Amino acid sequence: MQRLIRISDPDDPRIAAFRDIRERDLVGREGRFVAEGRVVLNVLLSAARYETEAVLLLENRVGGLDELLPMIPDHVPVYVADAATMDGIAGFHIHRGILAIGRRPAQQPVADLLSSLPENALVVALAGISNHDNMGAIFRNAAAFGADAVVLDPTSCDPFYRKAIRVSVGAILKTPFATATSLDDMIGGLSAAGFQILALSPRGEMEIGEAPASARTALLLGSEGHGLPADLMSRLTTVRIPIAEDFDSLNVAAASAVALHRLWRG
Amino acid sequence: MQRLIRISDPDDPRIAAFRDIRERDLVGREGRFVAEGRVVLNVLLSAARYETEAVLLLENRVGGLDELLPMIPDHVPVYVADAATMDGIAGFHIHRGILAIGRRPAQQPVADLLSSLPENALVVALAGISNHDNMGAIFRNAAAFGADAVVLDPTSCDPFYRKAIRVSVGAILKTPFATATSLDDMIGGLSAAGFQILALSPRGEMEIGEAPASARTALLLGSEGHGLPADLMSRLTTVRIPIAEDFDSLNVAAASAVALHRLWRG
Repeated sequence: MQRLIRISDPDDPRIAAFRDIRERDLVGREGRFVAEGRVVLNVLLSAARYETEAVLLLENRVGGLDELLPMIPDHVPVYVADAATMDGIAGFHIHRGILAIGRRPAQQPVADLLSSLPENALVVALAGISNHDNMGAIFRNAAAFGADAVVLDPTSCDPFYRKAIRVSVGAILKTPFATATSLDDMIGGLSAAGFQILALSPRGEMEIGEAPASARTALLLGSEGHGLPADLMSRLTTVRIPIAEDFDSLNVAAASAVALHRLWRG
Repeated sequence: MQRLIRISDPDDPRIAAFRDIRERDLVGREGRFVAEGRVVLNVLLSAARYETEAVLLLENRVGGLDELLPMIPDHVPVYVADAATMDGIAGFHIHRGILAIGRRPAQQPVADLLSSLPENALVVALAGISNHDNMGAIFRNAAAFGADAVVLDPTSCDPFYRKAIRVSVGAILKTPFATATSLDDMIGGLSAAGFQILALSPRGEMEIGEAPASARTALLLGSEGHGLPADLMSRLTTVRIPIAEDFDSLNVAAASAVALHRLWRG
């Protein structure tokens, strides 16, 4: 393919954005995110919610990407490297052989996101979700069960973290989200936008299957360790997923799957 | 506490079973497994399904284990070490400061396990689940939704792997399981024991909520990548979890949570 740009030097300045991506995940990356693997790249390109800046492919993966390559906008450079060069660029072994750099958008206020949603809407609201695997898995479930958006409090971890995007199989690049300035701001924003908030807790007052229907529903999930603050719970409708009495608890991502399955009206 | 045995040398032969546990996970460990952390140790001791051989604690964790220590049988040695010694023994940083070695039992034939179950029983059957995170998460969901047992085909990974036990928050040490000699053996054993098998697939013939009730039900889950073999699916009742049309799929562990939630009669 004519547009492929061959890279043979890991220090080539044209692929600087791909360099040492593991380390830079930990310290932030100046308005960009990393998408890995065929499935995630497909979501990035087909959802087209975020701008793709560059693509880096292992040379022996190019042949299998006949359907994806035409989806890459003409102005986006597509670099190709052999395995040693690619691993040298990234700083570790890139198993999937497919990387893309996307541009993070400006932060959108929660109120703006919520006001853009349809009259019938399902939103996932996250408070203190600090584990990137859980973050990715919750987004995957949100996308699978047709949630219109995700809102987060500022103590939740960054959905644009590389591993969260990978675990979400691209859902983070598809489902719109916004981070509130505080937990109160998130709850207040949801209420102001007419959302009935269902706070999921092992001690919820009703089973999730009995939750009252509402045109706009937000499922609120708290941190695995501490759950939702008691004073907040006391002001909200709380729901539970019944489980065996002799076992501890569900993982928060598993709980999100069950709850969203029950709330989805698709 | 009088029974605590102080260890100050990582090469002390008394704690040989704890040495280099990360490496030995990859090559097998001669009839033993590793339980990590307070929650998992609690399940190991309270379920008492498997014999505990030894416990190794970080010295500054001992004070917080007043409830757990009396559950450890008198003949089980409880070793205590400082952080440097403990990390030196294990070969990496033991964040939780609590380790135990358990004894793996002799393999139980699937038919024996199934015949030991009550007349009304829910079983999870796994074919080709090769990821230890998924294995642990599926067991956690199985325990949470009251499954009586798990059966596995021989291509599924080992539930006794350290990380699988950790992710299961101990469910692997609580819920009985057995590995079949082949997928056909597993399916045949379930049928012979009177189980109605529901094969979960994105292309299932009916929604999971509409699955016919049966005193003995087995939920069959296939590998994430390839799913269940087509010839097997054609012989079984297949069920699906409805999801949004424009998104790829659920993770197999998330799917197990939703399906078991629907099948549980607790």
